[in-house]
Amino acid sequence: MANDTPTVEDRDEDGFGLDDRLVPDVRLAGAAGARRRLGDLLEPLHPADIADLLEQVGAGERREILLLAPQEITGDVLSELDEGLREEVIAFLPREQLAEAVRELDSDDVVDLLEDLDAPQQEAVLDALEGADRAAVERALTYPEYSAGRLMHSEVVTAPSHWDVGQTIDHLRASDDLPDQFYHVVLVDPRHRPTGYVALGRLMASPRGTRLADITDDSFRTISVLQDEGDVAYAFNQYHLITAPVVDESDRLVGMITIDDAMIVLDEEHEEDVLRLAGVGEATSASDGAWATAKNRLPWLVINLFTASLSAIVISRFEDTIATLVILAALMPIVASTGGIAGTQSLAVAVRGLATRDLTSVNARRVVLRELGAGLMNGVGLAIVLALGATLIFGDVMLGVVLGLAMIVNQIVAAMGGVLVPLALSRLGFDPAVASGTFVTTLTDVMGFLAFLGFATLLLI
Amino acid sequence: MANDTPTVEDRDEDGFGLDDRLVPDVRLAGAAGARRRLGDLLEPLHPADIADLLEQVGAGERREILLLAPQEITGDVLSELDEGLREEVIAFLPREQLAEAVRELDSDDVVDLLEDLDAPQQEAVLDALEGADRAAVERALTYPEYSAGRLMHSEVVTAPSHWDVGQTIDHLRASDDLPDQFYHVVLVDPRHRPTGYVALGRLMASPRGTRLADITDDSFRTISVLQDEGDVAYAFNQYHLITAPVVDESDRLVGMITIDDAMIVLDEEHEEDVLRLAGVGEATSASDGAWATAKNRLPWLVINLFTASLSAIVISRFEDTIATLVILAALMPIVASTGGIAGTQSLAVAVRGLATRDLTSVNARRVVLRELGAGLMNGVGLAIVLALGATLIFGDVMLGVVLGLAMIVNQIVAAMGGVLVPLALSRLGFDPAVASGTFVTTLTDVMGFLAFLGFATLLLI
Repeated sequence: MANDTPTVEDRDEDGFGLDDRLVPDVRLAGAAGARRRLGDLLEPLHPADIADLLEQVGAGERREILLLAPQEITGDVLSELDEGLREEVIAFLPREQLAEAVRELDSDDVVDLLEDLDAPQQEAVLDALEGADRAAVERALTYPEYSAGRLMHSEVVTAPSHWDVGQTIDHLRASDDLPDQFYHVVLVDPRHRPTGYVALGRLMASPRGTRLADITDDSFRTISVLQDEGDVAYAFNQYHLITAPVVDESDRLVGMITIDDAMIVLDEEHEEDVLRLAGVGEATSASDGAWATAKNRLPWLVINLFTASLSAIVISRFEDTIATLVILAALMPIVASTGGIAGTQSLAVAVRGLATRDLTSVNARRVVLRELGAGLMNGVGLAIVLALGATLIFGDVMLGVVLGLAMIVNQIVAAMGGVLVPLALSRLGFDPAVASGTFVTTLTDVMGFLAFLGFATLLLI
Repeated sequence: MANDTPTVEDRDEDGFGLDDRLVPDVRLAGAAGARRRLGDLLEPLHPADIADLLEQVGAGERREILLLAPQEITGDVLSELDEGLREEVIAFLPREQLAEAVRELDSDDVVDLLEDLDAPQQEAVLDALEGADRAAVERALTYPEYSAGRLMHSEVVTAPSHWDVGQTIDHLRASDDLPDQFYHVVLVDPRHRPTGYVALGRLMASPRGTRLADITDDSFRTISVLQDEGDVAYAFNQYHLITAPVVDESDRLVGMITIDDAMIVLDEEHEEDVLRLAGVGEATSASDGAWATAKNRLPWLVINLFTASLSAIVISRFEDTIATLVILAALMPIVASTGGIAGTQSLAVAVRGLATRDLTSVNARRVVLRELGAGLMNGVGLAIVLALGATLIFGDVMLGVVLGLAMIVNQIVAAMGGVLVPLALSRLGFDPAVASGTFVTTLTDVMGFLAFLGFATLLLI
């Protein structure tokens, strides 16, 4: 088949991710019940790509794949799967396949998997684990959700802090249970408190007599087991950490977090920010159905129905004005909508700044003043364009003046609201991205209509 | 001073990032010209935190710090600084301090630094480098901006693919120019083409006689030197890579990319998505002034001024209807604004799905149908609430019917627009986040007013 011998030209642009031409083949094989062919197609794929494939095909196709090629659903595929799909996929896996899949995972991945399952499925997964692994997983589950304790894995390579390079290398070479992936040797004192770490490369490059304490890495930072995962992700990103030791309340080493886990958290936090700013309830999955999608979006739509009624009330106060000059009804959305855009701009910058800690108590006042200045400048600029345009089109200078004044007021309100609302939410301990969009656009709508119709009543009627 | 002996209680919540209480001390020291005190305050900080500090204080304070403590502005601080501030800071550094700062950086960081400087400053930085380093930087600059070639560093640790563990360890132990940070040994064939890599930990753990080829890491993937940095970040995220070898057109090894560089790119791409969705021109900096901020936001505001005029034109066609029943003017923003929210929700989900490659040609049709279904369901739900409310408040069943019908139409338009506009932009090769917000809200505004006033004209007048 032509599909089996791709040339460079018709490959995907970058060769990463799912190959578009693979999916039709998988569908065909699934529909035909071609067990062997399906296995051959899936086998060379990375677990993350198999998970993406399962997420992107329809529910019926997914079932066919699970029934025909359960052996391809390894622990890593389960780990990579969208949380929303895990229950469904696990329910379809034969028990012994599930057990095998789970046993190959690190303790942190098992924990992540368990969090989203219902009780009987959790039991099935825990039963598949051997004594020590099960104990590690159960210990991790005692830490709060979204804490460093849930992110860490318990496999750690340590050395007493008084050792030298030679001793350490000999010890490592002699041990038979080193983890598959580790990048640092953690130095610990006699009470098992980490005092620094040495990068493996540095260890390799140093003479045998060098004391470990003399070649520790500057980036060393410990993370408390109760720390919020968002703070962990921030620390990895800010300090370019590859791994970080996790300590309990007595500063004793209890595990390690590696950057790939932090990167996943960072990615989830970004997703949350984008979706919350847009008023979407929770993280969504490509495999969500229409019903789940509708339910996820309805709350903010209903809230908006009520906040939009505020605008309606404001406008209805000016019914006489509008009845006298109906063109006002046509022009009033211009001021409100441009204000909405400006508010959203200011809001996105502020929420992003709070997330990356670029907007802090140090510079909050300066940022607010900057927004005020920018709102004023853009307000005046837009007001001039709008006033000139309206004057030319309607031959009415005062109508232009009304539009211009309302625009200036609303641009300032928008710029201020966009930064003050998230700052206030954040001070009060809320996520600044949640709800601020609705607050700000309600504010710019109400102020837009109020300013425009108010000035019109004063100056035109 | 009390500030020098923080107790656990009054430390920052997580201890990462800048300590709020440090900044006033720095300001005081700067204002007092206390050179030594300022140095003492900055010296223990991580370069990333010093960069944040410089970004968050005002321009005058920044100048004081640069003049009093230039020795704290190391190469790493320059690397961490916002691009917008680099020119300003570099201009203030004494020449010999700049030279020293630049010489301590890896070639990829120098390249990143150079990209944002003007020609004379670039020359000054290049002059500070020694022959080989300068050549590496100049070679990297021949690759296109935003390509893997710009991200990679040229320091690579390789071994012939036929070597065994013992040979490799002996070789590494004997070499005196290993990079500070490396996590994999790359296996190369005689033509210097990478064939796999071995994690250092695995190397440590394996018996001396083991062939390297037998313990290579599954995650191995090469990256083309011309690959877009966004694709590189995707690959690191998708496949949990820690490092990846970069190859030229002949598949020869030319450098390595490490995950911290990929993480920065990922973070920048997220920022772009959030800001572009909100109609903000470019990445912004906490240190931007009001003028830069205003300029950055004006383009979409002006565009919105014109698109909002479309709504005004639509409404003005119904002036007679509104003159007959002025309450319509008050109610019409409800349908338009709820449509705007729904469109933004659908848009954010679609843009995020395209960015993470969860929305692909495989499931595009299913996602569009799902949005249609969700739009219809929420439309009907909101229509019932709105129609009942309007009937109760105004005692006019037909007014309720008009509001309900317009709501259903606009919710469907919003859901469809939110997914079809970014899909279309992406197919055409544009960034789906750019411009789609304006497209979609213009669509929902125009359709909202048109449907509401249209139904009103048909059914009420």
